Amino acid sequence: MLKTHGYATHSANSPLVPFNFERREPGPKDIQIEILYCGVCHSDIHQVRNEWGNSTFPMVPGHEIIGKVTAIGHQVTGFSIGQTVGVGCLVDSCRVCPDCQENLEQYCNAPTFTYNAPDNVSGGNTYGGYSSKIVVDQHFVLHISDKLDPAAAAPLLCAGITTYSPLKHWQVGEGDKVGIVGLGGLGHMGVKFARAMGAHVVLFTTSANKVDDAIRLGAHEVVISKDTEAMQKHRLSFDFILNTVAAAHNLDSFTELLKRDGTLCLVGVPDHPHPSPSVGNLIFKRRQIAGSLIGGLKETQEMLDFCAEHNIVSDIEIIPIQQINEAYERMLKSDVKYRFVIDLLSLSQ
Amino acid sequence: MLKTHGYATHSANSPLVPFNFERREPGPKDIQIEILYCGVCHSDIHQVRNEWGNSTFPMVPGHEIIGKVTAIGHQVTGFSIGQTVGVGCLVDSCRVCPDCQENLEQYCNAPTFTYNAPDNVSGGNTYGGYSSKIVVDQHFVLHISDKLDPAAAAPLLCAGITTYSPLKHWQVGEGDKVGIVGLGGLGHMGVKFARAMGAHVVLFTTSANKVDDAIRLGAHEVVISKDTEAMQKHRLSFDFILNTVAAAHNLDSFTELLKRDGTLCLVGVPDHPHPSPSVGNLIFKRRQIAGSLIGGLKETQEMLDFCAEHNIVSDIEIIPIQQINEAYERMLKSDVKYRFVIDLLSLSQ
Repeated sequence: MLKTHGYATHSANSPLVPFNFERREPGPKDIQIEILYCGVCHSDIHQVRNEWGNSTFPMVPGHEIIGKVTAIGHQVTGFSIGQTVGVGCLVDSCRVCPDCQENLEQYCNAPTFTYNAPDNVSGGNTYGGYSSKIVVDQHFVLHISDKLDPAAAAPLLCAGITTYSPLKHWQVGEGDKVGIVGLGGLGHMGVKFARAMGAHVVLFTTSANKVDDAIRLGAHEVVISKDTEAMQKHRLSFDFILNTVAAAHNLDSFTELLKRDGTLCLVGVPDHPHPSPSVGNLIFKRRQIAGSLIGGLKETQEMLDFCAEHNIVSDIEIIPIQQINEAYERMLKSDVKYRFVIDLLSLSQ
Repeated sequence: MLKTHGYATHSANSPLVPFNFERREPGPKDIQIEILYCGVCHSDIHQVRNEWGNSTFPMVPGHEIIGKVTAIGHQVTGFSIGQTVGVGCLVDSCRVCPDCQENLEQYCNAPTFTYNAPDNVSGGNTYGGYSSKIVVDQHFVLHISDKLDPAAAAPLLCAGITTYSPLKHWQVGEGDKVGIVGLGGLGHMGVKFARAMGAHVVLFTTSANKVDDAIRLGAHEVVISKDTEAMQKHRLSFDFILNTVAAAHNLDSFTELLKRDGTLCLVGVPDHPHPSPSVGNLIFKRRQIAGSLIGGLKETQEMLDFCAEHNIVSDIEIIPIQQINEAYERMLKSDVKYRFVIDLLSLSQ
């Protein structure tokens, strides 16, 4: 077994503290990774605090992992020691269901999430990326181009693929007018991707102080979504709107901006339900409200290659692991531009 | 001007009573039609009683019209006197917007509904099919095959196309498992169409006494939607569910029956909002909730031809116009199998 250091929380009400545990030795198809960086996702807070009601403790969070390969099983192909690699939200799936067969492992009925999930290989629970090392089946390990800054690439593994996948699925491209709702960890990636795909990008935010940043990140226009008049100017004009805001809010003000056959795609689960959306808004223009979940492994690799080609990474603030509890408090106040990334070298300090 | 007899309501609280009015003489592109039959749609009741808040009186309802051509303008092509024709929910549209150009006149921003709408050609308001004759631009007149019983064909013009259009748009066909929610005027047509398109059809109803009828109409299976256990057996199995129930109800019990990428399509606007649907149900399988509105003229003709080919009409109960007020009361108690159709010959009795 591999001695591993990390940070864990031991109950929904306690802070993250240093934690020693063991990982399995790499099996024939496994890759052992020394973790360099791990992004901090809002879902880490939800699970650490058991806000989804499915938490098991102790919990080592983290599913935006960048590291170096330090050992490989003898059946591993395409990876070698010293390479930079990534691990996202999944470390296993059933491999045989239609979703897995179609490279959409995220929709498998029996996926193994990177942390806070039963570990079918090693027993116990999975432990995530707030730690010194991890051992993962090669199918769930991603190649990271040397062109990408490894720290700033970490958030691509969740925030990146969560926004890239729906933009690709709904075929966003040249000539499309695309809205991105919210400028946070997800939204700022959505702006970058939609712009790189060739769309005319409009960022919706409630914060007037985010306008300059949104333009810098690639938005062609910014609309303050509380400004009813500004919103009305965009009625019936959008092909696709990606809504990254999880807090409950009125969806109708966005659906009515869609053209006929347009889609409003949600990627955040609200703690409390959104107000019930207007059915008339859907019927009178054959619009749709959809959801989308991260992405499959094949598409995640495609996204990472797209990032290397288009020079896209996340805007980040690097912290030592010792500041993780303060970082959570700042995230709850939206005080981060736009993702915290833990430097795991700090573990040995 | 053409003297016309009909039935109208003069306020939201008064019954339908005999009413004499005038239609325009047919212009160069117009077709004059002697109305034989008119279906009674639930939206007639909503508008007669001003439940949508947009009613103008006097109002002559009716948008499921079957009649005989009695005169044609000199620029009319493809129609001749004596032919059986139909008129649905629309009698005009802007003709130039992208929706009209793509034969989707129902999504035009300036359509002219068959009744209770400003009449851009003749002035005043449009008057519908509870009347002896109507004059309509040829673009909005449909050919009705002699193979179809004309009375039973009337509901195809609204109930028919409202269910046919989404089934076609979401490409229902052989090998698909399709749900139809509700067995009323719309639902019974949805069952017939989905079956004729080759799908495996499951009818959802709250009424155990509709099971036999649903099977007779073409459903392969019937599920009582209040039976949680019966519903759970169908989890994750549907490609498409067409929800014809307008009364507010829990949509989650249907979205969770969809496969990945499945669509729940709503065709009824509830008086009170549905409970807010679960966003998690959408995200975790990339499902969609959509809406759909009647159909364009080209697709309505395609639907009518499909009906002639597959021997599909509505199940109807024919009434004289003098019974229309009682018919409304019975419809509100779901006491009709499955559509009332007015025999307009009764007007002269």
